[in-house]
Order: sequence, then structure tokens, then C-alpha cells
Amino acid sequence: KMRLSVAFRYAHRSHASIRRSRAGVKVLNSENSFIPVNSAVSYLRVREASSTSGTSETVVYQNRQELKAIREPNPGLKPTLAIIQAGEDDGLLEVNKKMAGKIGLNVMQICLPHQCREEEVIEEILRLNEDSRVHGIFLHLPQSFLSKSVRNAIKPQKDVDGVSDLNVGRVVLGDQRDGFASPVAGAVLEMLARHDAPLVGKMAVLLGLEGPLKATLQFLLQNNGMMVQTHQWSSKPVQKQIMDSDVVVFLETGHKGLPPTWLRPGVAVINLSSALMEVFVAAVVICQHVVRSSRRWIQEQQYQPWRLRPLKLQSLSPVPSDIEISRAQTPKPISQLAQEIGLLPEELEAYGNTKAKVHLSLLNRLQHQPNGKYVLVAGITPTPLGEGKSTVTIGLVQALSAHLKLNSFACLRQPSQGPTFGVKGGAAGGGYAQVIPMEEFNLHLTGDIHAITAANNLVAAAIDARILHEATQSDKALYSRLVPSVNGVRCFSPIQMARLQRLGINKSDPSDLTPEEVRAFVRLDLDPEKVTWQRVVDTNDRFLRKITVGQANTEKGHARQTQFDIAVASEIMAILALTDGLADMRARLGRMVVGSSRNGQSITADDLGVTGALAVLMKDAIKPTLMQTLEGTPVFVHAGPFANIAHGNSSVLADKLALKLVGEEGYVVTEAGFGADIGMEKFFNIKCRTSGLRPDVVVLVATVRALKMHGGGPNVTAGVPLPKEYINENLQLVADGCSNLKKQIQIAHLFGVPVVVALNVFKTDTQAEIDMVCCIAEASGASAAVQCHHWSRGGRGSVELAHAVKKVASQKNHFQFLYNLQDSIVEKIRTIAQKVYGADDIELSPEAQAKIDHYNQQGFGALPICMAKTHLSLSHMPEKKGVPTGFILPIRDIRASIGAGFIYPLVGTMSTMPGLPTRPCFYDIDLDPVTEEIKGLF
Amino acid sequence: KMRLSVAFRYAHRSHASIRRSRAGVKVLNSENSFIPVNSAVSYLRVREASSTSGTSETVVYQNRQELKAIREPNPGLKPTLAIIQAGEDDGLLEVNKKMAGKIGLNVMQICLPHQCREEEVIEEILRLNEDSRVHGIFLHLPQSFLSKSVRNAIKPQKDVDGVSDLNVGRVVLGDQRDGFASPVAGAVLEMLARHDAPLVGKMAVLLGLEGPLKATLQFLLQNNGMMVQTHQWSSKPVQKQIMDSDVVVFLETGHKGLPPTWLRPGVAVINLSSALMEVFVAAVVICQHVVRSSRRWIQEQQYQPWRLRPLKLQSLSPVPSDIEISRAQTPKPISQLAQEIGLLPEELEAYGNTKAKVHLSLLNRLQHQPNGKYVLVAGITPTPLGEGKSTVTIGLVQALSAHLKLNSFACLRQPSQGPTFGVKGGAAGGGYAQVIPMEEFNLHLTGDIHAITAANNLVAAAIDARILHEATQSDKALYSRLVPSVNGVRCFSPIQMARLQRLGINKSDPSDLTPEEVRAFVRLDLDPEKVTWQRVVDTNDRFLRKITVGQANTEKGHARQTQFDIAVASEIMAILALTDGLADMRARLGRMVVGSSRNGQSITADDLGVTGALAVLMKDAIKPTLMQTLEGTPVFVHAGPFANIAHGNSSVLADKLALKLVGEEGYVVTEAGFGADIGMEKFFNIKCRTSGLRPDVVVLVATVRALKMHGGGPNVTAGVPLPKEYINENLQLVADGCSNLKKQIQIAHLFGVPVVVALNVFKTDTQAEIDMVCCIAEASGASAAVQCHHWSRGGRGSVELAHAVKKVASQKNHFQFLYNLQDSIVEKIRTIAQKVYGADDIELSPEAQAKIDHYNQQGFGALPICMAKTHLSLSHMPEKKGVPTGFILPIRDIRASIGAGFIYPLVGTMSTMPGLPTRPCFYDIDLDPVTEEIKGLF
Repeated sequence: KMRLSVAFRYAHRSHASIRRSRAGVKVLNSENSFIPVNSAVSYLRVREASSTSGTSETVVYQNRQELKAIREPNPGLKPTLAIIQAGEDDGLLEVNKKMAGKIGLNVMQICLPHQCREEEVIEEILRLNEDSRVHGIFLHLPQSFLSKSVRNAIKPQKDVDGVSDLNVGRVVLGDQRDGFASPVAGAVLEMLARHDAPLVGKMAVLLGLEGPLKATLQFLLQNNGMMVQTHQWSSKPVQKQIMDSDVVVFLETGHKGLPPTWLRPGVAVINLSSALMEVFVAAVVICQHVVRSSRRWIQEQQYQPWRLRPLKLQSLSPVPSDIEISRAQTPKPISQLAQEIGLLPEELEAYGNTKAKVHLSLLNRLQHQPNGKYVLVAGITPTPLGEGKSTVTIGLVQALSAHLKLNSFACLRQPSQGPTFGVKGGAAGGGYAQVIPMEEFNLHLTGDIHAITAANNLVAAAIDARILHEATQSDKALYSRLVPSVNGVRCFSPIQMARLQRLGINKSDPSDLTPEEVRAFVRLDLDPEKVTWQRVVDTNDRFLRKITVGQANTEKGHARQTQFDIAVASEIMAILALTDGLADMRARLGRMVVGSSRNGQSITADDLGVTGALAVLMKDAIKPTLMQTLEGTPVFVHAGPFANIAHGNSSVLADKLALKLVGEEGYVVTEAGFGADIGMEKFFNIKCRTSGLRPDVVVLVATVRALKMHGGGPNVTAGVPLPKEYINENLQLVADGCSNLKKQIQIAHLFGVPVVVALNVFKTDTQAEIDMVCCIAEASGASAAVQCHHWSRGGRGSVELAHAVKKVASQKNHFQFLYNLQDSIVEKIRTIAQKVYGADDIELSPEAQAKIDHYNQQGFGALPICMAKTHLSLSHMPEKKGVPTGFILPIRDIRASIGAGFIYPLVGTMSTMPGLPTRPCFYDIDLDPVTEEIKGLF
Repeated sequence: KMRLSVAFRYAHRSHASIRRSRAGVKVLNSENSFIPVNSAVSYLRVREASSTSGTSETVVYQNRQELKAIREPNPGLKPTLAIIQAGEDDGLLEVNKKMAGKIGLNVMQICLPHQCREEEVIEEILRLNEDSRVHGIFLHLPQSFLSKSVRNAIKPQKDVDGVSDLNVGRVVLGDQRDGFASPVAGAVLEMLARHDAPLVGKMAVLLGLEGPLKATLQFLLQNNGMMVQTHQWSSKPVQKQIMDSDVVVFLETGHKGLPPTWLRPGVAVINLSSALMEVFVAAVVICQHVVRSSRRWIQEQQYQPWRLRPLKLQSLSPVPSDIEISRAQTPKPISQLAQEIGLLPEELEAYGNTKAKVHLSLLNRLQHQPNGKYVLVAGITPTPLGEGKSTVTIGLVQALSAHLKLNSFACLRQPSQGPTFGVKGGAAGGGYAQVIPMEEFNLHLTGDIHAITAANNLVAAAIDARILHEATQSDKALYSRLVPSVNGVRCFSPIQMARLQRLGINKSDPSDLTPEEVRAFVRLDLDPEKVTWQRVVDTNDRFLRKITVGQANTEKGHARQTQFDIAVASEIMAILALTDGLADMRARLGRMVVGSSRNGQSITADDLGVTGALAVLMKDAIKPTLMQTLEGTPVFVHAGPFANIAHGNSSVLADKLALKLVGEEGYVVTEAGFGADIGMEKFFNIKCRTSGLRPDVVVLVATVRALKMHGGGPNVTAGVPLPKEYINENLQLVADGCSNLKKQIQIAHLFGVPVVVALNVFKTDTQAEIDMVCCIAEASGASAAVQCHHWSRGGRGSVELAHAVKKVASQKNHFQFLYNLQDSIVEKIRTIAQKVYGADDIELSPEAQAKIDHYNQQGFGALPICMAKTHLSLSHMPEKKGVPTGFILPIRDIRASIGAGFIYPLVGTMSTMPGLPTRPCFYDIDLDPVTEEIKGLF
């Protein structure tokens, strides 16, 4: 149905023309060019035809050069003109093909049958509109086909023939930058204007159907001072008007010629149905339009400072609740934000009006685009008094984008929904530094965690069902069920072939396997005691921390003890955060180890045959979700793995997409969970190692209050007023607590990354305290230390931080990893314990040692280390604030997330299932059934 | 910032005008009207001003009448003109207010400061664009404000001043139907045309800034044969041109007047900055445009045959796999489908490009719209050979919409995701009668089931945590935690106040409660043995059928036995299917009984304090999801409750929305689960009773094969070739099996609803078999019986069915319920057992009798009955095919879903958690990482 070639023709079929005209009439077309007969009356004098085609040659040359220039940095681009034609090609095709070829354009030709219906034409147009390879659409159809619906179906930016109402409107308003004017109308005017005689006051008659060509031509001629009268062509046009005319234009075919007596001497007759010259000029212009359209398209795709329309922030004092602030702001439609930051419509999948998933194809489109600066927000060792890493992250991008007018993106973790209904505390930031709508952020979002839950639990169901089926069936029965005869044919599915290969069985015919091979194939022989895979829910359900499953009679006594974790603790969440694409994610999902066989072999998801199904369940979750801050700047929300048993950082993919979108001069700000000793260390050693991305600067967040606690301030209890140490000035506590800040700065420097300290100011902080922190921070090696007021003032309150980050990020740094993957597992753990935590040494339990041996034997020794340690202290003892020293770090046990790709030593007991308090915050949460507004959510 | 009033003024501030003009110059404005001075030279003669205002009066009157006519059937409509102005009102305001008032328009006036920025204007415009109350936007701003971005920010359909490029283009192309032409330009032309002298050949000069008004006026004047020259106003315009002119138009203020010597005698000068007459005429036209815009808006909202663009279906033979067929078709963008069926953009929330949620506000907008016909698809008693209810449903709407061109909607249940990975069988239809993309339908869809899972499990977590907290804390400790002091203040939350009221405690100050009242308030005293609420997952996980939870040390020995159900078995799913809106859903969620206290009181979700949180979790799930069939016709997918422990029908809300959308002449086709004895009975007695909707016709689906099994054909086994009885003609088996068909027809007639039998034809069916079924069906009282070939041919194969449905649905019927709610529970159960199932009587177990007593005592006696019976037989014995008789229906136990609003007697054991087979179909499912295509899904 589609062929590549080129065709231009105005009107169609019949070349019957007015060439058989009487003396004294000038007929303009490229075949017999221009025949001046009665030069006394003539006001037109055409320069030689050669000069005309010479002009065209120049235009062709210029366009060829421009196209070359456009394509050079974009070798993948093939600017294409799509032509929809009804019926066959015609004689003009060859000429035009040659010219399009000269310029270097592709032509896509779509031939519809002569009798096609309007809807078919529109269907083709809509398809071409969405086809990003096509930069211009030209309808080579009879005028009668060009109905309003057809014409206006073409996207104005692809309407190179200027037939849409909008493009006609633009011509009339003199706007040649955004729109396209009809090339034929332009060609006619050019031809008339090339004559010396002035057009002003002359009379023209346009004969033919109403339409954009006629209207545009009429406007152009009138704009040049001519008097224009128009007529539909009929067998009997108004003779008098034609006799009075200086110019007669036949817009289309169908006429039988004019009686010679109707034409007065000296009249110029332009017959567009046979005027090859105009056709040629117009063809050149069309090609020129396609080149222009491609250039615009490329420009849109290239880096440029965003034309971001920030949302105004009117901050109130006292600062209202988070949900009130979120609700008071009307978010931009997400499609508008997407457009502002240079996303193409086809790269966006809206989820309602405030969230959208972004396609990974973007990475491919922008592959030649340099990355922006990469900023990590980390914190001092957390205390119950909080530091506000999320608000700093959001405040910083609000300042960068909305105030410094620099492209910038925040990349955040998606929070578990469980705690939303448990203990207060949203993850969307707070005060005037928030992601909105905050309830969407904190609830289902775009369903990624639900997808992880479904995938995780499918693996769990598959494990137990398999154990039961293996326990209750003979090898033969298992084999005949696993490899059934379908319509008399038995064959292995691809995933079964993969298992055979891992087993070293190189056979593909099921009937060829020996009984031993059948046994090896059908029996995973999972040891129920050694199943490491847990079920998950995204609910704080403490009663699922230890459970017994399989107690129904139908499970025939195969009960076993297991547990549920909170969904974000699933290894699949860690995979989502670390993967770089669909193929990699699928491979990682297959590699996940779910337990061991009775003879000690690791059993994987691939062995269970579930890999493909997991990839299918996760196919949408892999796309990052776009949202916006209170000031209308872009945010990616994607993945939120646990920060102890996993690496606690948002996704590699979101960072990569954002770094391309902000472009070379832009900033991507992401956040690491917990204190810098954990979140930042894992960000560098695990996330950056996996992604290949290199950080430019660390923003280290501190608060005076938290520093005071590190300096020895008293403990705090929820519900009891804060001790006076945290409310009144106390420089000694601050000075002592800065030891923790200093240590965390030093940790960042171990990796060669400069630090900007962001002091998140509370209204009880005194100037002396603030000055002291900044002073100590800079003395400790921070490149800068500034105070931030984003919580009460939004981006405006973080402008100073933004400037500091901009300055420090522009300096060269010497990023390095802390250990080599080839170091032994023990070596790697010790390096982290000593260099980062300040431990004297580590101590392995016998279980831990046994696991190390097992992992080495299974070939997992070269994975990076993901420490599962308390976040409340640099040591393993949560109560030790400041900078503990002289301790030995005990490694209780070691586990592995082989799919995610790390080994995680357990330092102490990690809870992977939170509980609900006596009065969960769901008591306050409600929905107004009329306004649909949510109440009581933070 | 907003006030209601009206203001029209062209140009602004200065009324400095050309009134101080020399003799011989005609100044046209409404203050000194028209001053002919030198009539010899004048070619203009204006009729009396009174006639002008007379015309306007007529127009005002006509518009007032039209507005009245529009508003009469739409009393909620208040057509509104929004005016954005910079600075204060001016003198013209009063006149215009009066006129807008005369016509009956609302005016919304938005005053921006004089120095506002372009973005602020655009922001206001964008807001007004989205405001469905506003039907026209008028920018009362200085010309210099009307930048391209500002002008084109206005939605063309609200651009009543004709300033957008698109509207100018439409004017030029003579399109007055869709667009709006500048009213001022129209007024000027009207004024000039009112003079007797012809305009042809006369010279006009337009002075003022470039813009849509100038361009439109120029085009209109030129179109009337005038020669027009335009100039930007400057202190020194081209004197000569003005002296040559017959008409001079000042488009705006800022000029200091012209030297009298520049104006030749007889010239007409129109000064738009002071020409009240034109302003008045223009104001009338603007109001007229607003009326036109409102009319269009109303027309769009009203019933009309859809302009649906069906997708072409090219069916192949043999029929490919479901996923191949689905993938071969390119779905329409869901926003396009939505537009075709009359949804407003703001009523749609896209979820990607092929799914969208539809707002319930639609019900309000279309409340005066009559409902379409309501068609229920039910089946004979199911057999393993299947009947194809879903494919019949989809085939029927494909035939109705795409072939008969009648508005029609299918309303389907969302399937559980569990079976998708267990045993083959999609729920999106099959063959050429499918919902596409079928993988989206069968997987996460828009997350409704995930939301149900989250809500269900939050209740479960709250129950166990509450039991633990009550068991481990004193009354006082519980009370101080449940009603904590926040900043020194203690108060009950609204949901706690509700509990107090249920307890009969009319106090609002927490310190007023007596110790007994505190105890009653804080202790739900749930009996762990009598918790009826189960956790759910949307995975086929058989090991969760019976489990013990709470075995971790942290749960202090409060372990108890419980179970997980598949997510769609949750009562919340039944509520979603039956609710009619947010307020009702919230109330039902609160009423859900989760167990009993030790003294036998029902404990509800509201007692747990979780109602609001559940409503928040379900706020998006309540909106039905729009998808499309293979032929591009609309489908709602919403809710999918179990068909035995719940009522097995898709949502009331989807049906209600669809019935409004199809309009009076349209059809909504929905499907009931299981056989007609179960699904249809519940559809009538439960769903229709709740919704108030009345069915017009039942389509009863049968297959020759399934009828043969009912006639005594042999059993079939998966994987073994079909017995010959099902492949070869066997009229005796068909004839015998039709007893089941006849019985199901009779059941429908019990409710007074006519039946069309749809025989879903397989290629092995013989003509004699087909004829026999149709013949027996009609003899048994079916209004029609037709064969269908939708599976192999799409809608084309169901055209005959569509015609039959159309005919039968147009007949009057006499719908009635089978029992009254006020009948006793036993009475209601017996009625169903005897009249529908054909049982001799029922027999209650002691447990069942005890439950009935309990429910009566708790006040649940007047709820409808939802039988939980095997679907494989009309009786309770799955192996009894055909029409069993002479049996007593045993009622083993009785349960209640109080939130959903029904009592469900258990006839036998109902499994609420499917398992995975030895070779689940996930072995075949995979994702191509490059094309992202899914393989192996059905």
C-alpha cells in the first residue's frame, strides 16, 4: 500500500488546458512559458524562464544544505514528506521525484483508491500525524476531497501545503514563523510579482472551488493591491468579469477552455492544472516547508532552556498543613508540564491529569544529548527530630527551576502506602516544598508498588504450589503435566529449554530425556526450610511477621512457617530501582534466587518458569512517573527500595531520563535514604556503579535540633513537649553535634565528591547557632554551607542553596568507588565498616561465615555489598549518637539479592514489616463525598 | 478578584477622538452619530440611527428568546461571558451590563492589574478554558496585550471575539458555523454596507496595530470590493493615502487626531475608540456569539447518534489466537473514542492511551437524558464446554454500534488477575469479539482490584492490631492513646463521635466520660474466633487457604487461624459493584461487619475508625474504566464480584453512565456471571433492586455442545480429544439438553422479561442442530432465537442477533421482583430454591438457623438473598445436568455482607482461593523486551 516516491500535481487527470488560446492572450505555464502578444496593453513582463528555474535551483541548493546541516548531528533523522493520493501516479511524478531527491527528502506515498471515503483519508492522516518520522503531509487529492474535516485533520505543524484553517489564519495574520502558507498561492504571486508592472489596482478573477488555496491566493493578491473576484468554475462563468480582468487564474481542471472572445488582449492567464512552472516552484516550496518542519521538530527535541511556566506560590504564615497547601495549589495539566520540558506526546502516558508515565524510548531519542549535573541529597545521621532531606530536595529544584530559571528535575522514591495509614509523615516533602497532589504521591500513584506486590506474590504462590506438586506426584506425572501433549505434540517452552541448559541437558525433544534427566528437570527439590522468598503486602500488618501457611486439607500437610514483608522490601523493588531497561529487568527477575534445593543449589525464578510473567506484570512499572512540585517544576517518582535490606535510592532509569531532559546546563537532584553513611554510600558503591552515572555534588542536610541531639541533647518522646535544649540557644550542644556532620562530610570526600551543607532552618534556631553550623561545616571541608527556608517559603527560601550547588557542581571532581568488586566479600564489608562507619573491625557470626562460603561457591562473590545496619547511629548501636569509635561491627547473618545484584550483611535485626499504632492516623483521614477532597492526610 | 458585571470597550482610556474635525468630514460614532456635510461628494448615506438600534433590539430579542429556549430543558445552565480586563471598569460598562442583562447572560469579570505580565493573562485564560460554566471569553485589553500567545491561548470554541488564528482562518475560508468572526469588524462592515453607495472600488485606510481585528476587517472590506491599505498608527501616517481614501478607520486610540487638511471632503471616518454605536452593535454580536457557543455546548452534551468511527475488522480464517487478534488491531486513542461518544474532556482521566476512567459527574450532567435500553446477557447452566457469554456480549455491541449504527455500550466485569497466570482463559472475550488491548484488560487495568486489596487488607491489619492493643493495654492507656492530647487539647475525631453515638453516649468532651463509658468506647472486644473478615491477594495462592497469623514474638502469643481469599471475593468488590456514588460507597464501607464482640454485637469498619481511609483508597476505583472493542465501540469495565458468595455482576455505576451516554435510542449490554439461575436471578433481585434500573430484554446464550452435555452427553477431560457426540450431529442429545434452555427461559419470564436466545455457533454444529435449538427455544417462549458468528466474524456475525434484540427491546415488558424484602429470610431462600432452582424445599442446618436468628436480631432480616450455590447445576449437585427435580436444597450455613447489603446462604462449600496447576500458563507468557509485545497470553 505504501511506496516511496514523489508526486506533485495540482488538480488531476485532464491536462486539457487553455493553450489553444487566441492571439493577444498570454498563457503562463512552464511548457510554453510566457507568450507576450500585445506588449502595448500588457502590464506584465516575465523575466526569462531560465531565471525562474535558476531561483528554484538556488532554493533547492539552500534547502539541501540546510537539510544536511540538520541531519549531521542527527544521523537517525530522515525528514519525510508523506503524500496521500487517490488513484495512480501521473506524469509529473518523475520530475518531482528528482527534485525531492536533490534536496534529500524521503517521500512516503500513500495511494488510496479513487473512490475512497472521507473517513479513510482522515484515518490515514491521523496515522501520519502520529508518525514521528513524517514531517510534512501533502494531500494530492481532487479539490472536492479537501473537505473541512479532511483539511483540518492534518496537524498544523505537518500541514506543509497550508490547507488547514489554522494555517490560513496565520497567513492572514502575517505569521510565517509557526504556520505554512499555501505554496501554490505563493508561486502564483511570485510569478506575477516578477513582472515589472505593478499589481496595484489591477483586476484578477479566480476560477475554481472554494478552499484554502483560493482564499490564500485571494488574500495575497488583495494584499498586493489587486481587486479580486472569485467564481466557482462552471460551464458558464460570468463573461463580463473575465473580460474586465487583467489576470485570470484557473485553480483546477474541469473547464473546457474559454471562448477566445472572452479574453481581452494582454490578459495573463494562469492555468494551475497545467502550469508546470508553478507546480515546480510550489514543489520546491513544499520541500522547503518539510525542511522547515524537520528543523522545528529537531529543535523541539534538542536541549533548550525550558519554557517552564512556574506556578505562583503565595506562602502563608503560619504554614498550613501539608494537605491544605497541596490542595490550595492547582497543578498544571501533566501534559502541559511534559510539553514544557520537551517530552513528545507519544512519550507520555497520562494517569489522570496530574501523573503520567514516561516512555523509556526517550533515552534512545536523546542519546546524543549530554547529561545535566547530578546532585545527591544526603543527610546527617537521622534522629527523631528529622533533617528534611525530601523538603530540601524539592525546595532546591523549586529554586533552580522556578527562580534561577535553570532546567532541573527532582527524582524521588515512591513511598510505601502502609505507613500512610499508620504513623503520620508523608514522603512528598512538606510545607511549601512538596510534590503535588500529595495524596496521589502517597497513595496508589501509578500502581508500581501494586505491580511489585502482584509479581512478588506470584513467585511465592509458584514456590509453594511447586513444592506441593513435586511432593504429591511421580516424576512421570510431573513430566507429563509440565510438558503436556498439545494436539498430539509435546515440546518444551523456551523457559524450560533455559532450565535444561542450566542443567547441562542439551536436548530439545521431550521424548529424548533419560529418566534421570527427567527427574533433574521436573524436580526443583526446593527445601521448604530454605525458601528465602517471602510474600509481601503494602499494608502495615504486624500479624503477618511470622505465619504458618498451607494448613488447609487441600495442601495435604505441607504447612510451613514463613512471613510477609512490606511490599517495598521485595527484591523486585530493588531490581526496579537498579535496572536500565526492559531486557535487563527481565534478566534480573529471572536470576532472583528464591531458595535452595535440598542439595544446596540456588533455585531461581527462572527455574520456576515465571520470569516472563513477572516481566509482563512489571512492564508499566518500569516507566518513571512524572509529577510536579508546588511551583510547577518536574519531578520523577520511581521505585522506593528499603534503605537497609536494599539500597534505599530511587531508580536509575528516572535519573537517566531526567539527566537527558534537563540537558547539559541542567540539574538532577535525587535523594538517598537514611544518613549519608548508609544511603550515600550505597548510592555511590551500588547505584552509581550499576548506572555508570557520576555525581557532581552532595548536598548534606542538617538541622540545628538534630545536631544538638548528636551533641548529647536529651531524648525526645512523642506527645511530650520538646526539652528546652531544642528550643533555646545552646551553642555547646551544636558544636559537639557537628562532629557527626563533619564525619559525614569526610565520608563524601572518601568518594571524591564535594559537599554543600544545607542547614534546614527552624524558627527556634538562633543566628549564632546557624552561623556556628555553617562555620564548622566549611572548616570541615564543605565547599559551602548555607541555610534554607524552603519549608516556609518554597523555592524562594532555597535560592542561596541553589546558587551554591550551581557553583560547586561546575567544578571538576574525582569520583571513585570505595572498594573493588573483585575484593573478597569480607574485605568489602570491612572496608565499609572501617572507612565509613569508623569501626575498628568486623566480626562474623558462624552463620555469616557459612553464607559467605555458600555465596562464593555459587559464584556470587563479586557482587557489591548492601549493609543492613541501623540508620540511627554510625555504629550498629542505635543509641550511640555523634561519632562512635572503638567498636567492632558484628555481622549476624548475610543474605543475597541476586537479581538486584548485591549481598546484604545483617548487622542486627531488621524489621521488614511495620505495625499499626493504637491510634493509626486513618482515624483522621476522610473523603468529602461531594467535593472529593481528602482530609487529615498529614 | 472576580466580580460579576459586564464591560465592553474597544481600545481603552482616552476618548480623545477625531470629533474636532473639519467641515466636510463625516464622523461616525454613536455620540454625534453621522454628520453629512458635503453630500455632493458623499457616497455614504446612513439610515437613521434609530433604525440601527432597532436592528440591535431585534437581535437582542431574538437572542433572549433563543437563550430561554436553550435554558428551559437545562435549568442548570447559566451561559456566561468571561471578560478579562486590565485595570478599572470604564464608562461603557453600564450600557453593556444592561444589554447583557437584557439577553440573560451571566458575566464573569476578571480584573488584572494594569501592569500584569503576559503569563498572568494566559493563566487566567487557561483557567477559563477549562471552566465549563464559561461559554465565551473576551479580552478587554489594550491591543498591545493581544500577543500571539495570548490570543491563541483561548479555546477557539470560546473565542467569541474572533481573535485566534484559527477563527481568523475560518472567517477567511467563509466558515461561520464552527468559528467566530470579529464582532467589531462585522459591525464596521454592517455600518458601511448600510449606506446606499456601493463599496466596490472604494479606498479604505485602516490605522492601528496589526492583529486579528485589522486582518479580519481588511479581509471583509476587500471581499466587498474595496481597496484597503493598512498602517500602524504613528504620529506621522502617510498623508497621501489618507487624502485618497473614502473611508478611514481608527482601530484604536493613541492618535492625537488628524490635521483637518488631510481629510478630503466626503470621507467617512470611523473611530473605534469612541464609536459607541459600533461598540453597541459589536456587544450585541458578542452576546450572540456566547449564545451560539452555549447552544453548541448544550448540543454536544445532548443525545445524538454518535459519530463513531468504527475500526475495520479483517477477520482471518483460521481464527488466530486472542492476543494475536488483539495486537493486530490498533485501538483508537481513548480520548478520541471518548469524544465520539459525547464525553467532555474534563470527564475523562486517561490511564495511558487505551484506558480511561470516567468521572461520575457525568451522571449529573446527563440527569435529564432518558436512559437507553438495558440488555442482560445470561447463559444456560455452564458446562466445561462453555457458552461464550462474554463473546456474545461483545459481538452484540460490535454489531449494534459498528453495523447497525446504533449507540451501544458493553458493560463488563474486571477479571481477577490470579487466573491469568493460572489456567488459560481470558475474560476480554475472544476471537473477533474482544475488548482491546486484551492484556490491559486482563492485567492491572486501572488498578481497581489493587485498590480493593489495599482497602481490604487495611481493615484486616486494623482488626488484628486492635485485638493485640486491647489485650495488652489498660482502658486508661487505650483511651489516652485513642484520644491523645495534642498541644494540650483532647478531642474525639468525627469517626469516634460516630462510635460514641452508636454506643448511646451523647458526650463530646473526652474528659466527661465515666470509666464504664471509656471502657465501652475503647474496647471493641472482638472475639478472635468470630472475626469474619479475611485478608485477600489477587494471586492464585492455595497455601493461603488456611493460615495462622501472629506467630512472631512481637505479637505476644495472639496467634489465630484465618485465611486469604482471592481479591475479587472481598466484600469491598461487591460494594464497588452495587454502590451509586461516593457518599453511598463511604457509608457502605463503614457498615461492613468484620466480626462479633464477645457479647455478640456486630463490629463494623466504622468501629475500627477506618471508614474514611477506605473511602480514600477507593476514590479512583469508583470511576468506571472505558475501553473499546475490536471494532472501536465503547466498553465499560468495572467491578467483578464473585458470582457465588457475591452477586457476580458488573457495576451499577457503569451501567448508569452507559445508559445515559447511549441515550434513548441506544443499548447497554451487560453480562451476568454463571448460569441464568444464579447470575440473572441476582441481577434482577439484587442489582436491579439496588439500582432502580429495569431490564428490557435477556439474551440467553447457549451452544449446541453444552446443550448436548445437558442432554446426557459424556463428560469431557482436558487434554483428551472430544467424544464424538460433540463433533458429530446428534439431534437426540440436543433435544434432551434443551430442557435446560427451556427452564432458563422460564426463569427469565418469572421476572416478566422477554428472552432472545443467542446460539453461539461452532463449526462442528450442523444446520439441523442449529434449527432444532432455535425451534425449541421459540416454542419454549423465547421471543426470538438466532445464531451468532461473532467469534469468527466479529460484529458482522451478530447482526441478526442485534436486529432481534432491537425488536424485542422495543416491546413493553412487565418486570417484577421474585420476592419482597420484607419476607422472612427463610421465605426468601425458599422462593428462590423452589421457583428458580426447581427444588421441592429447603433444609436449614442448625448453624444456618442460628445465623438467621442472629441476623434478625441484629436487624439484617430485610436484606436480599445472594445464594452461594454451585453454578454447574440448577440443583446443589454439580453433576446433575439438564433440569434436576425432586431435591431438597440444603443450606449449610449463612453469612452476610452488610456493607454490600445481602445475606448469602451457603449451599455446599465455596472455594474462595483458586490454586495454580502443575504447569501454570505463566510458562508461556513472556514479553519481548524490544517490541514490548506480550506473548502467550491466551
